[in-house]
Amino acid sequence: MRTTRAADAMRPVEIIHDIQPQAGASLMIKMGGTHVICAVSVENTVPPFLRDSGQGWITAEYGMLPTSTNTRMKREAGRGRSGRTYEIQRLIGRSLRMMVDLHSLDGKTFRVDCDVINADGGTRTASITGAALALRQAIKREFEQGNLAAMPDILPIAAISAGLVNGQALLDLEYSEDSRADVDANFVMTADGRWIEAQSTAEGRPFSPEDFTAIAGLARKGINELLALWECA
Amino acid sequence: MRTTRAADAMRPVEIIHDIQPQAGASLMIKMGGTHVICAVSVENTVPPFLRDSGQGWITAEYGMLPTSTNTRMKREAGRGRSGRTYEIQRLIGRSLRMMVDLHSLDGKTFRVDCDVINADGGTRTASITGAALALRQAIKREFEQGNLAAMPDILPIAAISAGLVNGQALLDLEYSEDSRADVDANFVMTADGRWIEAQSTAEGRPFSPEDFTAIAGLARKGINELLALWECA
Amino acid sequence: MRTTRAADAMRPVEIIHDIQPQAGASLMIKMGGTHVICAVSVENTVPPFLRDSGQGWITAEYGMLPTSTNTRMKREAGRGRSGRTYEIQRLIGRSLRMMVDLHSLDGKTFRVDCDVINADGGTRTASITGAALALRQAIKREFEQGNLAAMPDILPIAAISAGLVNGQALLDLEYSEDSRADVDANFVMTADGRWIEAQSTAEGRPFSPEDFTAIAGLARKGINELLALWECA
Amino acid sequence: MRTTRAADAMRPVEIIHDIQPQAGASLMIKMGGTHVICAVSVENTVPPFLRDSGQGWITAEYGMLPTSTNTRMKREAGRGRSGRTYEIQRLIGRSLRMMVDLHSLDGKTFRVDCDVINADGGTRTASITGAALALRQAIKREFEQGNLAAMPDILPIAAISAGLVNGQALLDLEYSEDSRADVDANFVMTADGRWIEAQSTAEGRPFSPEDFTAIAGLARKGINELLALWECA
Amino acid sequence: MRTTRAADAMRPVEIIHDIQPQAGASLMIKMGGTHVICAVSVENTVPPFLRDSGQGWITAEYGMLPTSTNTRMKREAGRGRSGRTYEIQRLIGRSLRMMVDLHSLDGKTFRVDCDVINADGGTRTASITGAALALRQAIKREFEQGNLAAMPDILPIAAISAGLVNGQALLDLEYSEDSRADVDANFVMTADGRWIEAQSTAEGRPFSPEDFTAIAGLARKGINELLALWECA
Amino acid sequence: MRTTRAADAMRPVEIIHDIQPQAGASLMIKMGGTHVICAVSVENTVPPFLRDSGQGWITAEYGMLPTSTNTRMKREAGRGRSGRTYEIQRLIGRSLRMMVDLHSLDGKTFRVDCDVINADGGTRTASITGAALALRQAIKREFEQGNLAAMPDILPIAAISAGLVNGQALLDLEYSEDSRADVDANFVMTADGRWIEAQSTAEGRPFSPEDFTAIAGLARKGINELLALWECA
Repeated sequence: MRTTRAADAMRPVEIIHDIQPQAGASLMIKMGGTHVICAVSVENTVPPFLRDSGQGWITAEYGMLPTSTNTRMKREAGRGRSGRTYEIQRLIGRSLRMMVDLHSLDGKTFRVDCDVINADGGTRTASITGAALALRQAIKREFEQGNLAAMPDILPIAAISAGLVNGQALLDLEYSEDSRADVDANFVMTADGRWIEAQSTAEGRPFSPEDFTAIAGLARKGINELLALWECA
Repeated sequence: MRTTRAADAMRPVEIIHDIQPQAGASLMIKMGGTHVICAVSVENTVPPFLRDSGQGWITAEYGMLPTSTNTRMKREAGRGRSGRTYEIQRLIGRSLRMMVDLHSLDGKTFRVDCDVINADGGTRTASITGAALALRQAIKREFEQGNLAAMPDILPIAAISAGLVNGQALLDLEYSEDSRADVDANFVMTADGRWIEAQSTAEGRPFSPEDFTAIAGLARKGINELLALWECA
Repeated sequence: MRTTRAADAMRPVEIIHDIQPQAGASLMIKMGGTHVICAVSVENTVPPFLRDSGQGWITAEYGMLPTSTNTRMKREAGRGRSGRTYEIQRLIGRSLRMMVDLHSLDGKTFRVDCDVINADGGTRTASITGAALALRQAIKREFEQGNLAAMPDILPIAAISAGLVNGQALLDLEYSEDSRADVDANFVMTADGRWIEAQSTAEGRPFSPEDFTAIAGLARKGINELLALWECA
Repeated sequence: MRTTRAADAMRPVEIIHDIQPQAGASLMIKMGGTHVICAVSVENTVPPFLRDSGQGWITAEYGMLPTSTNTRMKREAGRGRSGRTYEIQRLIGRSLRMMVDLHSLDGKTFRVDCDVINADGGTRTASITGAALALRQAIKREFEQGNLAAMPDILPIAAISAGLVNGQALLDLEYSEDSRADVDANFVMTADGRWIEAQSTAEGRPFSPEDFTAIAGLARKGINELLALWECA
Repeated sequence: MRTTRAADAMRPVEIIHDIQPQAGASLMIKMGGTHVICAVSVENTVPPFLRDSGQGWITAEYGMLPTSTNTRMKREAGRGRSGRTYEIQRLIGRSLRMMVDLHSLDGKTFRVDCDVINADGGTRTASITGAALALRQAIKREFEQGNLAAMPDILPIAAISAGLVNGQALLDLEYSEDSRADVDANFVMTADGRWIEAQSTAEGRPFSPEDFTAIAGLARKGINELLALWECA
Repeated sequence: MRTTRAADAMRPVEIIHDIQPQAGASLMIKMGGTHVICAVSVENTVPPFLRDSGQGWITAEYGMLPTSTNTRMKREAGRGRSGRTYEIQRLIGRSLRMMVDLHSLDGKTFRVDCDVINADGGTRTASITGAALALRQAIKREFEQGNLAAMPDILPIAAISAGLVNGQALLDLEYSEDSRADVDANFVMTADGRWIEAQSTAEGRPFSPEDFTAIAGLARKGINELLALWECA
């Protein structure tokens, strides 16, 4: 049972801007003990499948420092990306591409690197929330520097985890909860109540549609709190 | 608009048993133009993290013949597994592990290979549905050959895709529908109404919770039809 | 000693056409328990060393499903191609390139994928025999669709294994024979009595030129039977 | 010409301790705009070549966040370690192994990860200086937790770069100086005036032994200042 | 047309012994402009599939210096072994294993490295001829040093290329002949008239059984000359 | 203690020219038991970062035959280049680039392969000394063949190792000395008394600046002797 915060409470969230001053935009997002650097690089090309399409592109890469976890993780430079890494960076990229019409990016690629400095559960959702803020910043700067013809409309998004632990629905799982959850879910949502991704996985046992509805409700509450960051950022 | 079948209709399903007679159990599942061979190999070891745990293990690998798709796909033997392949084989493995208590597998690994011979949408869900049937078969045979102390309880599962195309909720997307879907979802469910995986992704635009509910309802209908295969198989 | 068929008898041969309808041409060849899918993809480029030569190209790739063999074989997507795979796909490609004047292919590459679904000896020769038929089909279709200026002359070829087992010369070895053969040979031949490849290997002990002559004679008999497929296909 | 600091002046140095609380010891070292996380993991094994030797081992790995540099660097997870990375992590490991008698480490491996968050010149020497401090901390903690029989003697070391730019000897080069240096040198030294590594490289033109002596003198001054960190840390 | 030597003449052959004094046995074989170092290392283990079989093992590896060829070849350290390399080292290993009863090798592996210093055609056959001599030497030395219980019987073997160039059968092709040959063949044979490998490949056009017989006859002549090396070596 | 030669004596040096006649220039350098083939290939392109710069490029690759060492070394074709290999080939390339103004190379790349046939200490310095001679030869030949507009000025360089063994400074370490050295140093120097690289590493214990001076003095003596090769070569 969770004792130090309510079942529907998030961990404290903090954003530190411009942590990597050489990137197009960068920040560190802290959600409790989970710390992720999100940084955007802007490139004047697009992948081959978009050549001559007039579209730009948004993509993401994800990594973890070997000492970000409980037990040291082997460096992917030495063994290649794991399946988990591929899965996460595909999810981040897909989510970010919903934020903006790719036709408005004037043939540029916005590459968002999410690097986990400390991992205490929810690294993929913290990555998306941080990456979305950094991406907005990078697009704004490109426009302000005259590198984009018009400032594109940007759809605010955020992501949060929720799950079922010992039969109780909990918002924003930390590692000690996540590792014994029966259901583990991740949501990416917009400010106007719509969904971008909903992934819900039975870890211990299958779950009911009602469980899913309860978890999704918690996620909506968390997302709304995270989207408040967009005002002040 | 779908014209040749109803929005809530599945493509014809066919199972051909023992297509690879040298495997522990094997079958080809055909869902319309999507054909997948699912074959189980039984190994008398478990991965290192389960040594001395008394548990067995269930895992899956996924591949596509290069000529299974519209445009030839480069062979992964030459370039390594793609992120999509990793994502899919992790999903299949996770789903299958919900079917049986791993403690009942007497320290054996059941490795399920899903190889796509022809791809016309829904290859990952067809893989799960076929793999679940083949896995039951392989476990049964292990028990009958005296290699398992007791016949484990097996939870029937099946998987299906559904989505939103041109504003209409459709069951069991084929490739031409999948490639222009606004929402693409995959569900893994049990016979008793519970869920194992629910993954819903905005491809074109964010979707409402009501859209999700409609899609999940279609999936339930499809799953129920697929689980009828368990009777006759 | 072989009991169920004569020393100079082949296993039953069957061709199933268009098994992968999305390829340029495809078939499954069955020689007894050995089943191989051969599929041709047509590409409008040639490899760098043929740029601006006016020639086309024919090449082959070979793979085995992990569960096609007696004991499951590790997937090459995870470990790279083996030496055996390289050796076989080079042999297939070389053989097919003898079928047609590359100058008549109008700068196109015909890439033939041979994927073994079930392996019971003779997979490389079954691959060549099936690939040759599929290649002819693909070239014909290219011509009929107006993608080749003229229909090229095509030299029919086929391949078969033969060997020496317990001192007896046998045609078309199955796995149980192949694995204890003293001499293992593969031949690729044409309809007019000429040879394209002759590879004869001592597995257990060196062999005499007379042994070689006996084996080559069996191969000629088998090739003639296989080339009859060209009439009806 | 350097204008904002004296030719023999270092950039401001800052140490932030326990930046990765899950590691055996960790810190971030900042030398001006160069920021490196150094973290130590303690493992209860040694590499094969030390099995049964009674010795422990000290080794290092080095990485850079893709967005730590001016122009984004491709992630080594996707392309393998570069030659530069190998060269640097070998240098760090060699240097650290001079700090302590390996026989006093009771068969443990101390693995030091150096990850560059921001790069503005001198990342390899900052890594060594930070890693040495973190390693001392980790060894102390192991002893205090009863995991080492005795507290080993530890030799304080530090590292600094120096070079020749436009004919002037400069201490602690930043990137804009390093990139146009005629001579680029790195030194690892001890508190008692001895040297562990001296690497001096002509980038633009060969240099005289007198140039080397001048550069080495600057390095000694810088090292002495860095070793003062050992008192207060 | 060959002008400087007869159609059935070999290039001058030279053996330089102990070219790598740190190996178990080593030599350089020169056949005209083709120079190969063959060196044997003796290991006190066998591959996993021979554990507890009582057998030893013989295996080979093959490489070419990047500057051994006409046009520099990319180093395989940077791109992995090519298909050709795999094919050749499998051929060398298979051939050498016919020389001796593996049961007489007392559980040792004899690993033969063949490294081409200069390539002017026939590198694979020169490798086999040289490797066979070096292997005999290494086995003898192992016996003389008391590392083998008895001196095994050794079957002398040698290898040579032959082919059809402009309709003429030629022995021992050099590169300028090999590159325009219609038929390219390699033979591995024993002293008593038997064959170990016969590989004959149509490069330009199919060939007749009579052509094959002529080529095999030339090869026999060359092999007999090479086997004379066994007397004096 | 060194007994067979004086502490400041080099091993006998021998150069064999044109050992690989197909390269642009080639030689074998022997320094005692260390034998290295150095061969230059000339390419009419430059790496991407030099495109349109008007400069040429000089780069080096390094390899060891598996049987060049005491204990057989695994082939890098099978496992990729080691960190040590990367480190050495970067050092060789950097050193050679000091020999000539890259602008005088007319957009050509001179690629120098250094392949160790026998290793008995000092392979990297022997590689540099041999590569420098071969590079001069290749540049001269390019000029003589009309492929360079003018003959560039070439700065003679050579390299040697020196170190501290049992408290004694020794020149040109062989393997048995190198493996128990307290300090191991490598120098690349020019004829006019200047330095290109100075790398000094504590292997057993830190060393004093005076030790370094003594070692550097020995190196200067050795370099002068090696540079005499430039006269006669």
